[in-house]
Amino acid sequence: MSSIQRPLNGLIVGASGYTGAELAAYLQRHPHITIAGLTVSAQSVDGGKLLSDIHPRLKGVVDLPLIASDDSAALADLADVVFLATDHAVSHLLAPKFLAAGCTVFDLSGAYRLRCSKVYPQYYGFTHQHSEWLEQAVYGLAEWQGVALRAAQLIALPGCYPTAALLALKPLLDAGLIDTAQWPVINAVSGVSGAGRKASLGSSFCEVSLQPYGLFTHRHQPEIATHLGIPVIFTPHLGNFPRGILETIHLRVKRGVDAAEVATAFYRAYQDKPLIRLCQGTLPSIGAVAGTPFCDIGFSLQGQHLIVVAAEDNLLKGAAAQAVQCMNLRFGFHETCALL
Amino acid sequence: MSSIQRPLNGLIVGASGYTGAELAAYLQRHPHITIAGLTVSAQSVDGGKLLSDIHPRLKGVVDLPLIASDDSAALADLADVVFLATDHAVSHLLAPKFLAAGCTVFDLSGAYRLRCSKVYPQYYGFTHQHSEWLEQAVYGLAEWQGVALRAAQLIALPGCYPTAALLALKPLLDAGLIDTAQWPVINAVSGVSGAGRKASLGSSFCEVSLQPYGLFTHRHQPEIATHLGIPVIFTPHLGNFPRGILETIHLRVKRGVDAAEVATAFYRAYQDKPLIRLCQGTLPSIGAVAGTPFCDIGFSLQGQHLIVVAAEDNLLKGAAAQAVQCMNLRFGFHETCALL
Amino acid sequence: MSSIQRPLNGLIVGASGYTGAELAAYLQRHPHITIAGLTVSAQSVDGGKLLSDIHPRLKGVVDLPLIASDDSAALADLADVVFLATDHAVSHLLAPKFLAAGCTVFDLSGAYRLRCSKVYPQYYGFTHQHSEWLEQAVYGLAEWQGVALRAAQLIALPGCYPTAALLALKPLLDAGLIDTAQWPVINAVSGVSGAGRKASLGSSFCEVSLQPYGLFTHRHQPEIATHLGIPVIFTPHLGNFPRGILETIHLRVKRGVDAAEVATAFYRAYQDKPLIRLCQGTLPSIGAVAGTPFCDIGFSLQGQHLIVVAAEDNLLKGAAAQAVQCMNLRFGFHETCALL
Amino acid sequence: MSSIQRPLNGLIVGASGYTGAELAAYLQRHPHITIAGLTVSAQSVDGGKLLSDIHPRLKGVVDLPLIASDDSAALADLADVVFLATDHAVSHLLAPKFLAAGCTVFDLSGAYRLRCSKVYPQYYGFTHQHSEWLEQAVYGLAEWQGVALRAAQLIALPGCYPTAALLALKPLLDAGLIDTAQWPVINAVSGVSGAGRKASLGSSFCEVSLQPYGLFTHRHQPEIATHLGIPVIFTPHLGNFPRGILETIHLRVKRGVDAAEVATAFYRAYQDKPLIRLCQGTLPSIGAVAGTPFCDIGFSLQGQHLIVVAAEDNLLKGAAAQAVQCMNLRFGFHETCALL
Repeated sequence: MSSIQRPLNGLIVGASGYTGAELAAYLQRHPHITIAGLTVSAQSVDGGKLLSDIHPRLKGVVDLPLIASDDSAALADLADVVFLATDHAVSHLLAPKFLAAGCTVFDLSGAYRLRCSKVYPQYYGFTHQHSEWLEQAVYGLAEWQGVALRAAQLIALPGCYPTAALLALKPLLDAGLIDTAQWPVINAVSGVSGAGRKASLGSSFCEVSLQPYGLFTHRHQPEIATHLGIPVIFTPHLGNFPRGILETIHLRVKRGVDAAEVATAFYRAYQDKPLIRLCQGTLPSIGAVAGTPFCDIGFSLQGQHLIVVAAEDNLLKGAAAQAVQCMNLRFGFHETCALL
Repeated sequence: MSSIQRPLNGLIVGASGYTGAELAAYLQRHPHITIAGLTVSAQSVDGGKLLSDIHPRLKGVVDLPLIASDDSAALADLADVVFLATDHAVSHLLAPKFLAAGCTVFDLSGAYRLRCSKVYPQYYGFTHQHSEWLEQAVYGLAEWQGVALRAAQLIALPGCYPTAALLALKPLLDAGLIDTAQWPVINAVSGVSGAGRKASLGSSFCEVSLQPYGLFTHRHQPEIATHLGIPVIFTPHLGNFPRGILETIHLRVKRGVDAAEVATAFYRAYQDKPLIRLCQGTLPSIGAVAGTPFCDIGFSLQGQHLIVVAAEDNLLKGAAAQAVQCMNLRFGFHETCALL
Repeated sequence: MSSIQRPLNGLIVGASGYTGAELAAYLQRHPHITIAGLTVSAQSVDGGKLLSDIHPRLKGVVDLPLIASDDSAALADLADVVFLATDHAVSHLLAPKFLAAGCTVFDLSGAYRLRCSKVYPQYYGFTHQHSEWLEQAVYGLAEWQGVALRAAQLIALPGCYPTAALLALKPLLDAGLIDTAQWPVINAVSGVSGAGRKASLGSSFCEVSLQPYGLFTHRHQPEIATHLGIPVIFTPHLGNFPRGILETIHLRVKRGVDAAEVATAFYRAYQDKPLIRLCQGTLPSIGAVAGTPFCDIGFSLQGQHLIVVAAEDNLLKGAAAQAVQCMNLRFGFHETCALL
Repeated sequence: MSSIQRPLNGLIVGASGYTGAELAAYLQRHPHITIAGLTVSAQSVDGGKLLSDIHPRLKGVVDLPLIASDDSAALADLADVVFLATDHAVSHLLAPKFLAAGCTVFDLSGAYRLRCSKVYPQYYGFTHQHSEWLEQAVYGLAEWQGVALRAAQLIALPGCYPTAALLALKPLLDAGLIDTAQWPVINAVSGVSGAGRKASLGSSFCEVSLQPYGLFTHRHQPEIATHLGIPVIFTPHLGNFPRGILETIHLRVKRGVDAAEVATAFYRAYQDKPLIRLCQGTLPSIGAVAGTPFCDIGFSLQGQHLIVVAAEDNLLKGAAAQAVQCMNLRFGFHETCALL
């Protein structure tokens, strides 16, 4: 983009987690970004360490220190763009401060994903105090928000599960193929990294095995329904692998819809989208997407019963890669810059 | 059982596979059974080896040789009860021979599971030539066939997926709770041992990752539908773990059905069934069932949408343990003899 | 044993951990033991739950409650035999109380494993206050202590790593085959359950990968050296599997020693030991021992360089199974009672 | 490199395997290389498919077809540089043909790694017929062959195990720190991808667990000894992870050598080597290197016993990444071009 005179200064808040580390690796190799700082909260035991001390995989790749600071004003001075890889409640309060300082904010938490503030107490455990920003936030489902992203100051990145679910369902809904009288059923399995980098018995090696959780109560259910526009059933599972999400989605298509129409709907939506891979003659798998920025989509139709399968890396297309993709679109860089 | 004067002679045909090895371990510790022989096909490279050479886990437990033989007449002479842990097509031809010789046959293949011979060409690739036995075979879903089992000469053990699916759905259907206008959707994930002990690229360590397969075409779909009595949607997946099956089943209950009615239906069906564990306040997982003979069942209901989750070890309750359970019921031994 | 008139009352202190749960499962099916109680510390959040709430695998197998109690006097009244599956420092103080009350104590911690109290501050972080019991404790390496066990009141069960290392090395040392001028090198890899059941970042699913730790500082090094009688190099690793230990041990045999002598030494030591499996034509693996009470031993010799490989389940032969084996020997039950 | 006027045409022979696929991904993003062709043998069932059909992870990244051809003359016409990711025996015959056609050949097999043709029958099962090329081949241990590589026409890439072992040991041997009277002992564990992409029971998901193999007989033993110049003991293990190698190496240093001297030896050897990461205060792990082109090295010294730990991705620094690194050095590109 010719108008970019200097690299943008990028700040990652909450850089020590799995998503933060992936973001750091992307920004490090992004030609239009200079990493202005990687921060953790003032209380974090990780403050002062190198990111690569915590994520030794990144040694020799991103050897920057983790700054322990909650001083958003000082941090805002450093940055043109801010990535919030922080907890929902933390992002909720931080984002307005960085926005007020003029930064463009990419929030990877759920703090600004929903359109209605009333949903927050039930699903997020806090009362939303910034409905003005909730309204202005652009939902960063990159393939579907290209135009809106270009003027956005606050981009709320979709949750990991909603990214795959919405990418799988929106083309069909937009094409009018779905019989919405029957709610789509989204069976999803996520790798353990989705639970974040923390000590917990539930994430410990010997305790993890395939198991459903959060039936009817997971916060990604209202997020999917809101951005899809129809109700859905969502059943998340924890799987015994470190990263990746696979969603097997069942829905009823309208009478007479055939496989060619389904394929066409996907093709039209994604033919020019470099991070969506449509599968033909095969079905998505965790192995094909783990470590990549892609979302893979495939389907099988019998009668009116359509099964759509979508897979992505929860930390990449479901988080860090989509954040960078949105930043690329926002600032006019090549959509996959630093991603492929 | 007082009338048992001597242990029964038990023969396992196809003993070198994963299911065969589990069967051998159960029979070895069964007080009413003497292992009369473990066989493999005459061409097998495993002939003459000890079972524990192939499954070193069993060294010191079952150190019997694998007899390479296809001479069913000679083998039948050795045995009161025969377990066929063989391929569908092999069982199809072997079972009648052992039956004609007076043996009680427990067939772990699919050769005698379906009621209608016409389904075999499409789903099993062969034309069924023994419809007389197909009619007489008792489907060995142990908790539901107790009486019929007692007089059976041919017991067709259910497939691994159908076992969990039927155990989860039959109590609800019998209680009249299901709105059958909407087909139940069975999402299932199986460990790799379900593919059998063989060299194949698809089962190789580096190629396995969570992925659906056989959508709308898996042979367990007609098996479930037949023995349930209503159509179902069945979506199997391969998971990256050695053993276990988890099924997350979606269905619509009739208007007004509440959670208490669902719980009651399960309780009534299984209150005295020692190998069914009903989960309350938790949900089944692979970790809880792998290596055990149990099927765990839990559920969650919201409105008319019911999610039932069932888990089992595919090689045990889904195969070897259920076969022994059926044998126990058939001959009047304690239902869990050798299993717990 | 004819003199046993009634089952012994067995108490497991610290029953909520991985080892405690395995112990409970063994005692539950032991014909000469009645479980008198499963306890956790008074502060534990697990107090009052069922063991099977915490280890759902055991539902329907051991559904006993976990008693929150530190009242060793009251607990001692319940028990003939006590299994301490507690932290080293806790066992150190508890064991004398149970001993004073007349119980036979099987301590699975390291509190009474070493012969010299002086080593405790450096390797265990506390000053040993019960050297009188340290001297009386019998080290429960079952295959090597049969006679001493029969009169023991305090049995200090070996650590998981030392069990395999000593079982592999003692026959060779006793046979005079080792050139002790060169220290044996013990490379060992343990599954994650060796770290215990607790929330820690180091044991979390996404953080675990094969990696050495504790080089030259692990507390099992002095334990092995003490009970072997010669110095050793010990290099433990964490492996990415839940359970099992594999040790690859390098040593120099005396000039002229050949493979037949090595094989003979192992054969003589273990020919009548039911839980030691000597491998010929194959080598031990984690897969062959996980979930079993065995220790597998194999070797390969070239010139004077001998490689001995030993494998066991760290929670079983390396802990719970060996404790039960010692109890069986102590009270004259069949050595493998409840284990096979 | 200013003298490069056009990208080089790169050919990968044997592109369908794990190493071939990694090579293709590197070459695809290499600014000085154009992929001239990806080939498989004329008989391969993969001929005609896209590389990304076989490795769906590469869809959208390398969507080139696999050409089924054994016509080395025709293939040589396409290529400036040829990567042989073929079996030892195949490379042995192919390399001279491509060399005769003027190509620069990077052979990833073992066909040209050893200096002495006499070793081939025992360790590789064929009689070497091209000792003239065996003498001219430059052993592509990149950090140690920089100068020699610049003029090489045939580069024999080191084996995966030898790469880590030699990188760990050569600095110490060159610095004169090792007491060579005692042979270094190399305990190594490799991920399953080291066995290649093929159907085999030994590589199947349910059969893999940590286990030693090839004790005293593995062909990488003479490779390490030859290029190190002293004998070694080498004990490879198969580990239950897809990729990565960890080597724990034991050796005796000369009397008086201290940790500072060891650290200095490594520092001097690798201070300016971008793909070697020296660990301080931590030890290498599989998790830190899998998916990266690095070799990590750490150590611990007590008395005269030195433990050196090295880790790498067997497919990358142990194969494809080192091949590209050698190509970069050979042609004057930046050493890590396309790798980081």
